[in-house]
Amino acid sequence: MIAGREVCVPVGVLVGLTETCFGRLGLSREDASVVADVLIDANLRGISSHGFQRVPIYAKRVRQGLAGGSEEMSVVASFGAVCHMDAGKGLGPAVAVKALDKAAALAREYGVGLVALGGSTHFGPAGYYARRAASRGLVGMVMSNAPKTMAPYGALERFVGTNPLAIAIPLARHEPFVLDIATSVVARGKISQAAQVGEPIPLGLAIDSEGRPTTDAVAALAGSVLPFAGPKGSGLALAIGMLCGVLGCADFDDELASMYEDFDKPQNIGQLFLVVDPWSVQDRDRGERRWDGLIDRLGALAPAEGRGPVQYPGQLEAARASERARDGVPVSSAELMAFAECCAEYGFDDLATAGRSLVGM
Amino acid sequence: MIAGREVCVPVGVLVGLTETCFGRLGLSREDASVVADVLIDANLRGISSHGFQRVPIYAKRVRQGLAGGSEEMSVVASFGAVCHMDAGKGLGPAVAVKALDKAAALAREYGVGLVALGGSTHFGPAGYYARRAASRGLVGMVMSNAPKTMAPYGALERFVGTNPLAIAIPLARHEPFVLDIATSVVARGKISQAAQVGEPIPLGLAIDSEGRPTTDAVAALAGSVLPFAGPKGSGLALAIGMLCGVLGCADFDDELASMYEDFDKPQNIGQLFLVVDPWSVQDRDRGERRWDGLIDRLGALAPAEGRGPVQYPGQLEAARASERARDGVPVSSAELMAFAECCAEYGFDDLATAGRSLVGM
Repeated sequence: MIAGREVCVPVGVLVGLTETCFGRLGLSREDASVVADVLIDANLRGISSHGFQRVPIYAKRVRQGLAGGSEEMSVVASFGAVCHMDAGKGLGPAVAVKALDKAAALAREYGVGLVALGGSTHFGPAGYYARRAASRGLVGMVMSNAPKTMAPYGALERFVGTNPLAIAIPLARHEPFVLDIATSVVARGKISQAAQVGEPIPLGLAIDSEGRPTTDAVAALAGSVLPFAGPKGSGLALAIGMLCGVLGCADFDDELASMYEDFDKPQNIGQLFLVVDPWSVQDRDRGERRWDGLIDRLGALAPAEGRGPVQYPGQLEAARASERARDGVPVSSAELMAFAECCAEYGFDDLATAGRSLVGM
Repeated sequence: MIAGREVCVPVGVLVGLTETCFGRLGLSREDASVVADVLIDANLRGISSHGFQRVPIYAKRVRQGLAGGSEEMSVVASFGAVCHMDAGKGLGPAVAVKALDKAAALAREYGVGLVALGGSTHFGPAGYYARRAASRGLVGMVMSNAPKTMAPYGALERFVGTNPLAIAIPLARHEPFVLDIATSVVARGKISQAAQVGEPIPLGLAIDSEGRPTTDAVAALAGSVLPFAGPKGSGLALAIGMLCGVLGCADFDDELASMYEDFDKPQNIGQLFLVVDPWSVQDRDRGERRWDGLIDRLGALAPAEGRGPVQYPGQLEAARASERARDGVPVSSAELMAFAECCAEYGFDDLATAGRSLVGM
């Protein structure tokens, strides 16, 4: 965890604070609600690095006119089951749900639909959007490029982002299968957390700015993170960057503005949303039964020593989300204070007070 | 290399031997030619584990009526840009090129096309088919499931195949980008090779049949190989298996017959062929220039210590293929002898003699 103690906050309160903040910043009610849902859903599932923590930076960029709502999102070109949309610098979550919905509509019409979105910004967890497809009985595959923070295999310096890939598959008796993987060994956020508390990181996660393997988290942040499985993660990150960049007409990873450091222009991230309707060519009852049965067999495998039952991607996160929806979401006091400061800066004094009062709970 | 010394064989000779062998086994001229091209192309690119070495086992299964040509391949269901085809137990390469071509035709019509192929068999390198799309200016994504040889993350026992994913992207000034990754740490074939020469394998590649980490290649083969990057490779293998199994109406990994061990029924492997026409929504000149420029920038990065210029996936393989097409293909004498024995068994004495004479070169 980032710093200091954690507070357990009811999910409705986190959503309300986030939604109100973005509403005050000028987002439509609908957009503010979507952004809050995407971010706080990440907290529910335990992906706190992609959740409430991002509110201040998203807010700062909206305030500076570098990001906004989905009003200026538009279809640039469209052909059959493929659509190129421009996000009009809308905040990632606000535009990504619309892109996914468009891809799902294409999948209903053609069996498969692909939306390439350019002009977008950081969109939180890719798995959210893939899962949105799965919640409608469809298969979703979502990818995004990102500013360069990773050295490709065999290189000493940054060139690609930790470009994520998410694949979600609908299940009938189980929560959806949701694979959501960054192409780095570990999320860069974990290295940031180690740097903040002054802890070393294991060898193999990153190199310093001279290209030397390092266990120093601060040196790692100044250098490059490394791809998972060497050439495999590196190649996958490159492929995602190439596809998002050209299909979405977005910047490539090495051309992208940093969300945290570049305030002279909007980000121009590319994101791909591929949706397949399996039931366009297969029997749904049989297919769902087979998937559920496979998941049952997976769960019945002998677990590795000292481990619990074998789980599928998304299973742990879904269980955690139910728990936290009931019992509250752990949020670090540092995140709450950062939220309060950001709100105070924009004159949202009631939100600032609410954020601070949660820390005192 | 498998065993003993290597012989350098002109590529045309390897293709001719392979093509003739499958022709004699009853495959059509076209199918035999495709199977030979796919397999020997793997040798050209240095993926010998998926090349000429597979001729005897493919031949054995054809001979036993468990695999054949593409005559019985058929469209089972079709909806918009998605098509479910049944391979009619055609040899993987013979049917996979047709499935890819169908997906490419759908992509021309709808911008994106997806063919799910069931009833298929081992198809060699997934990258071959993705590259076939790229050679026409299209993006290809190909995946296949495979009989279980890998323990999912957190499990002690086999459940998934080393299910490969390939992504190919067309380039104008460079050979195509072709990523082709198995979801295991290393190809199982490399562990077999270590077992044959009695060498140990590094820790982390496999577990024995009791689920213990092992450096003993023989124990590893009796146990399970491990996924790359733990939960990431494991989740990707599962996703590929689930999609191929249901969309292709194929067996799941844990239901699949082994190519080498089960001779009582045909394999029923599932393969997915996704093709995207980027130029349906983007300007081709600009897109190709941007991709080529990105590859140029990648190649100009500072290389890691002691390494040559940074390469993109498929670059090394393409260079090797040109070299070997000119200078000949290294083939182990053991592979040539295995080919000769297989041909002798089926009464193809001229082919057997030709194979043996190459060993004596």
